[in-house]
Amino acid sequence: MILVLGADGYLAAEYLSEYDGVGVDNFSKRRILETHNIKPLYTHDSRPMKVMDVKSIGPLIRELKPAAVIHLGEIASAPYSMEHPNYTIRNNLGGTLALIHAVKDFSPQTHIVKLGTLGQFGTPGVKIPEGLFDLTIEDRTTKALFPKSPYSWYHLSKVFDTEALMFASKLYGLRVTDLQQGFVYGSTNSRFCYDGVWGTVLNRFLVQAIAGHPLTVYGEGGQTRGMINIKDTVKCLNLAVENPPKEGEYKSINQLTEFMSVKQLANLVKEAGDEIGLKVKIESIPNPRVEKESHFYDLEYKTMKDYGLKPVLLTKSILQEQLELLMQYKQNIIIDQILPRVAWR
Amino acid sequence: MILVLGADGYLAAEYLSEYDGVGVDNFSKRRILETHNIKPLYTHDSRPMKVMDVKSIGPLIRELKPAAVIHLGEIASAPYSMEHPNYTIRNNLGGTLALIHAVKDFSPQTHIVKLGTLGQFGTPGVKIPEGLFDLTIEDRTTKALFPKSPYSWYHLSKVFDTEALMFASKLYGLRVTDLQQGFVYGSTNSRFCYDGVWGTVLNRFLVQAIAGHPLTVYGEGGQTRGMINIKDTVKCLNLAVENPPKEGEYKSINQLTEFMSVKQLANLVKEAGDEIGLKVKIESIPNPRVEKESHFYDLEYKTMKDYGLKPVLLTKSILQEQLELLMQYKQNIIIDQILPRVAWR
Repeated sequence: MILVLGADGYLAAEYLSEYDGVGVDNFSKRRILETHNIKPLYTHDSRPMKVMDVKSIGPLIRELKPAAVIHLGEIASAPYSMEHPNYTIRNNLGGTLALIHAVKDFSPQTHIVKLGTLGQFGTPGVKIPEGLFDLTIEDRTTKALFPKSPYSWYHLSKVFDTEALMFASKLYGLRVTDLQQGFVYGSTNSRFCYDGVWGTVLNRFLVQAIAGHPLTVYGEGGQTRGMINIKDTVKCLNLAVENPPKEGEYKSINQLTEFMSVKQLANLVKEAGDEIGLKVKIESIPNPRVEKESHFYDLEYKTMKDYGLKPVLLTKSILQEQLELLMQYKQNIIIDQILPRVAWR
Repeated sequence: MILVLGADGYLAAEYLSEYDGVGVDNFSKRRILETHNIKPLYTHDSRPMKVMDVKSIGPLIRELKPAAVIHLGEIASAPYSMEHPNYTIRNNLGGTLALIHAVKDFSPQTHIVKLGTLGQFGTPGVKIPEGLFDLTIEDRTTKALFPKSPYSWYHLSKVFDTEALMFASKLYGLRVTDLQQGFVYGSTNSRFCYDGVWGTVLNRFLVQAIAGHPLTVYGEGGQTRGMINIKDTVKCLNLAVENPPKEGEYKSINQLTEFMSVKQLANLVKEAGDEIGLKVKIESIPNPRVEKESHFYDLEYKTMKDYGLKPVLLTKSILQEQLELLMQYKQNIIIDQILPRVAWR
C-alpha cells in the first residue's frame, strides 16, 4: 500500500488519479495560506479521490505500515518562505522528522519517497551531479552529497530535509529516495496557482498571456531552472516507488527532463500565444529575489531515464493546449496578484 | 558591547571571566535537563558574573545593538539528542533562526559568532578543509561548503545552523563567523559534567580514573576527534570577535589545536594517573554509538594561528593538575552515571 502525504495538492491529485494509494493531508494550504487558483478547488464532495484529514503521522504509519510513503506534504513557495521562514521550516523539517521517527518506530521497512527540489543546489557554477559524487581532496576520495546553495528559506528547508533523511537512512537503516525536482508545468484537474507567491514562473506567464498583461521577467531573465511536465512527475513518483533502495540506502535523484532560462520560457510562451492570436508582450521588471540573473547551469539526470522514463518535453503545442484550457477561466484572473509581492531583502 | 548567549554554560563563564560582555541564558539546562556535575553549580548569588534570564532574543538585540553576539546557547549533547531529536533541533535551529532575524531586523551590523562543531563533518575519509574550499567538477571550479556527515541529531542541528547562517549572510548581508570546534577539555570554575550523556570523553575518563573505575573505551577506540583546551577556546572566541567578517561575509573556522584517538586519550589519562598513584585500568565496552571505530582523520586548521593563537597542547601534567583538582570532589561522583545510557539505535 502506498501512502501519499500532501494529497490535497495538485501533484498528489494527479498521482492518485493514475495509481492506487491512500491520500492524507492536514489541509493547511486551505486553512492557513492565501493562494490564488484559476479555478475553484475540489471540495470534499467533488474530489474524485478520497483524502483523509490527518494531523499526526505516527498512528497512521503504525496502522497502515505502507510499502512506501510519498511525502509531498510541504509548503512549497520560495516567496512565501521569505515572509514566513519559521513557519515554513517548522512545517517542512518538522514533518520530515515526524515521518522519519514514525517509520523508524512503527514500520522500518517502509520506503520514504520524498519530494525535494533542485533549488537546494542553487546555481553553483559547476555541473551538478546526480546523487552522491566522488569528492577528491589531495590523494583521497569519498562519496559526498553535493554542497548546497539554496535560493530561499523554502529551499533551505529542503536542504534540511535532505540532510535529515540521509542521516536517518544511515542511522536507522531506513530506505529513502530523495527526489530533487525541477519546477512542474502542465495541465491539472486540481490546484493551478498563478499568483506571485504560489504560482510557478510558467503558470504566471500563461495567465499573463491570457489576461493581455506583458509577461513579467525578473531582471535579465537568464535564471535557468530544471523543469518537468506533471505527467512525467507522476511517472517518476511511480518509478521511485517501483525501485526501492536497499535497507539503509539513501538515493538522491535529479527529477527533471530539461532546463531552460526564464527568458527562453517567456519567448516560447510568446510564440505559442501569438500563433493563437494573443499578442503577447514581454517586459523586464526589477528582480524581487536575490539570485544570479545570468549564470552557468548544467546538471546530470539519468536515473529516471535508466528506470524507463520517456520524457515529454515542452513544446509550443503543449503551451497552446494549456492556454486554450485556461482561457475558460479568464474571468477568474486577478491580474494584480501575479506581480511579485514579496521582496527577498 | 559583546552579548554572550548561553551564559549559564561553562564556556561562557570562562569567557566572561576574561573579557567584558553581557551574559544571558534561558536556563533551560538547569530547568529541563538532567546533568551530573562534579561540583555544585553557581547559584545566582555565588556567580562572579551576572547572567540575565532571557527567553526572547529580539527585544534584547534591539535594545543592546551589540558589536558581536557570541552564540553558545545550544543543547550540546550527542547522546541526549538521540533520545530527544525534536527538542534538540527545535532549540538549536530555532534559536539560531531567531538570532538571525533579530540581527537582520534590529542590528544588521552585529557580528554573529556561532559555536559549531567539527562533528558536523564526521569522518569523511578525506582531509577536511577549513572554510569554503575549491570544488572542481569537470573543468569548472566553485567555492563550496564541505559536505556534512554528522554523528548524531545534535551534530545535525549544527549542520542546520551552518546552512542557515551561510544563507543569511548571503541574503541579508550579515557578518557571520561559524566556529567548528573540537571537544573542549580543561579546568573550569563552572559546570563540569562527567556523566554518559553530558560529559565529554576526557571528562568521563578523568572521573573514572579518580573513582577507581576502568576507563570505558567505546569499541576499538580508534575514533579520532579534534580537541582544544578551554583556555584556547576562550582566546579563540575573542580572536573571532576581533576579526569580524565584512558585510555579507560568512567565515567558517576550524577551532581545534590537535586531534587524538579515544584510545590515545585513555592511554594518556592512564599514564598521568598512574604517575600520581591512581592505578588506572582501561577496558573496551560495546559502542553505543553508530560511528566508525577506526578511520582516516586529518583536517586543516590555520586561521586561529594566523590570528595569533599560541596553542596549549594536552600534556600529562595538565591532566595531573586536573585530576588533583577533581579529587577534592571524589565523594560527589555517581559512578553509574558515567556508563552510556543512550544507544544510537
